[in-house]
Amino acid sequence: MIEKPTLILDEKKCKKNISDMFLKARAHALQFRPHFKTHQSLEIGSWFKDIGVNQITVSSVTMAEYFSSSWNDITIAFPCNLREIDAINDLAEKITLNLMVESVESIAFLAKGLRAKVGIFLKIDVGYHRTGIDPANVILIDKILNVVDTNSLLIFKGFLGHAGHTYACRTAKAIRQVHNDSLDVMSKLKASYIENYLNLIVSLGDTPGCSVANDFSGVDEIRPGNFVFYDLTQSVIGSCSTAQISVALACPIVAIHKDRSEIVIYGGGVHLSKERLYDEEGAVFGRVVKEEKDGWGEVIPDMYVKSLSQEHGIIAVPRKYINNYNIGDTIMILPVHSCMTANLMKSYRTFDGRVVSGLS
Amino acid sequence: MIEKPTLILDEKKCKKNISDMFLKARAHALQFRPHFKTHQSLEIGSWFKDIGVNQITVSSVTMAEYFSSSWNDITIAFPCNLREIDAINDLAEKITLNLMVESVESIAFLAKGLRAKVGIFLKIDVGYHRTGIDPANVILIDKILNVVDTNSLLIFKGFLGHAGHTYACRTAKAIRQVHNDSLDVMSKLKASYIENYLNLIVSLGDTPGCSVANDFSGVDEIRPGNFVFYDLTQSVIGSCSTAQISVALACPIVAIHKDRSEIVIYGGGVHLSKERLYDEEGAVFGRVVKEEKDGWGEVIPDMYVKSLSQEHGIIAVPRKYINNYNIGDTIMILPVHSCMTANLMKSYRTFDGRVVSGLS
Repeated sequence: MIEKPTLILDEKKCKKNISDMFLKARAHALQFRPHFKTHQSLEIGSWFKDIGVNQITVSSVTMAEYFSSSWNDITIAFPCNLREIDAINDLAEKITLNLMVESVESIAFLAKGLRAKVGIFLKIDVGYHRTGIDPANVILIDKILNVVDTNSLLIFKGFLGHAGHTYACRTAKAIRQVHNDSLDVMSKLKASYIENYLNLIVSLGDTPGCSVANDFSGVDEIRPGNFVFYDLTQSVIGSCSTAQISVALACPIVAIHKDRSEIVIYGGGVHLSKERLYDEEGAVFGRVVKEEKDGWGEVIPDMYVKSLSQEHGIIAVPRKYINNYNIGDTIMILPVHSCMTANLMKSYRTFDGRVVSGLS
Repeated sequence: MIEKPTLILDEKKCKKNISDMFLKARAHALQFRPHFKTHQSLEIGSWFKDIGVNQITVSSVTMAEYFSSSWNDITIAFPCNLREIDAINDLAEKITLNLMVESVESIAFLAKGLRAKVGIFLKIDVGYHRTGIDPANVILIDKILNVVDTNSLLIFKGFLGHAGHTYACRTAKAIRQVHNDSLDVMSKLKASYIENYLNLIVSLGDTPGCSVANDFSGVDEIRPGNFVFYDLTQSVIGSCSTAQISVALACPIVAIHKDRSEIVIYGGGVHLSKERLYDEEGAVFGRVVKEEKDGWGEVIPDMYVKSLSQEHGIIAVPRKYINNYNIGDTIMILPVHSCMTANLMKSYRTFDGRVVSGLS
């Protein structure tokens, strides 16, 4: 019985998403290092382990600590936070830990402060312009590598990119174009440095690119994360169909306003997050799917979450459907951004009522 | 030592915000039933108790359960969620509990399902159009009251309104106009029903109105919540100054991009929330304040959080200031919406390093 907003996990869809990406990586002879920031759950992580995955990506030291109970090869794909040097040292003594660096300041700090070996990835800005080194800035790359090469605890692993600008795409073709630009950037870097670093790894990571691209020339490793659940944003971008989305928030209906054809749900910004996408209707905070026995069906056209307060969600309902709903029913919402929703909800419920817990 | 994003609480400012609102309520002879959804903390709640507050508002059954260990008079100002009837009954047996209802369906369900007495507030739509009964819909009001009057466990308490449309205002004058419209609506209702319900309470609640209005004619109780911390949204609306904001997120600097005059912080949507306001610069996710010994000073002009990913925040920095910051420093951010940030962070740190915990 659903009493309050509950994140429902379609285990079958989720496992299919996992195995599809695993098989794609294998088909392209890529190392698969999935990003676990999306689900943040040891149990869901174990589903990756079951099919043979043995290395993962996270985006914080806290997540690395959480997953280090089951995983001994973790990359923290976030600019190294120097203030957590003690926790980093504890982890580095326990597991194979890779850090991401993009400045001389950070690598110099690590060179002084580390007590155990860590792998170092240099973050390369492949065009997203959020973080990373301009790939043309060879002087900076060489300065950082110079520090790495002269310290026995720092092991250069390779170049890491994240083409986050695929999220601005709206077709698979546009995603492939962005992805190909990343391949160009990374291939050139690889060609320049492979002679001195024979085991150099090129690591790329975004779910849109990994979902729709078929060319991974020069890439050694992929780190997608969101694909485990996908979400409405990914479907709008063109990296999945809505049928592949494996989580939905079940929300009690607490009020119905027929005059304006709106439903009020218990389910707000503290459940779905305030993440929105701009679609034909304007800002959309979630879409409604048909509830079915043990699952959900297709997205109901023109029915969407139009606004969110802290605990309230307001759903715009086509007039012809408004009489199908009653106060006390539940309604199922596909999230705009599953990473944010999962982070807020902290646990999942499967169709058989089992609770899958996450990092809290 | 700040290692990761940490919500800093200025205890003095917070207590001043509390006592200011308490004194304002007393000056207007209003019952003060503060909304605790903003801080969600028993300890911060105790600061209200210390000055004589003995009744509170929350927005979920979960929060009512949490606070019921210290508070025995709680209103759940959210359309009653029928699916939590068991938890509602447990609470109603233990404390004075008020529920909010806006439909015949919900009151009929309660009439059948309750095992203990509850107070009932009818939610009136004072113009926000999120929830509530159209005040002109006397037929609906009477139908609901008819169910209440014929059931010994249902005690009619009064009419409850929330002028959430004050959040669209940008001046104190505009807020007062919206507030006065609410007074009109509620006064008329009160005049119609007071004869039959001598103890009828008119309850109003938004922080903007309660902060700037000086006329509360016909109002018996106020339920503001956000004022305990205030935030950037409240300052833009005109309900507080930025100097009154009592929480700031301390975030480690993890990268600096001088070419585009940007700082990358560890502090993202999972810390600040994706709440934004639209100001001169476009979308703003937070503003930076000057760090000072034991606190923070004024907002630094033109320095703001321009985007947020899950863990990253990108800060736009005026070029003249970019050399003032180093990787490994912390930076303090005033949140756009303190309720959402507090809900994500779950605890607070005071200047003396004490941790004030909240509902987790």
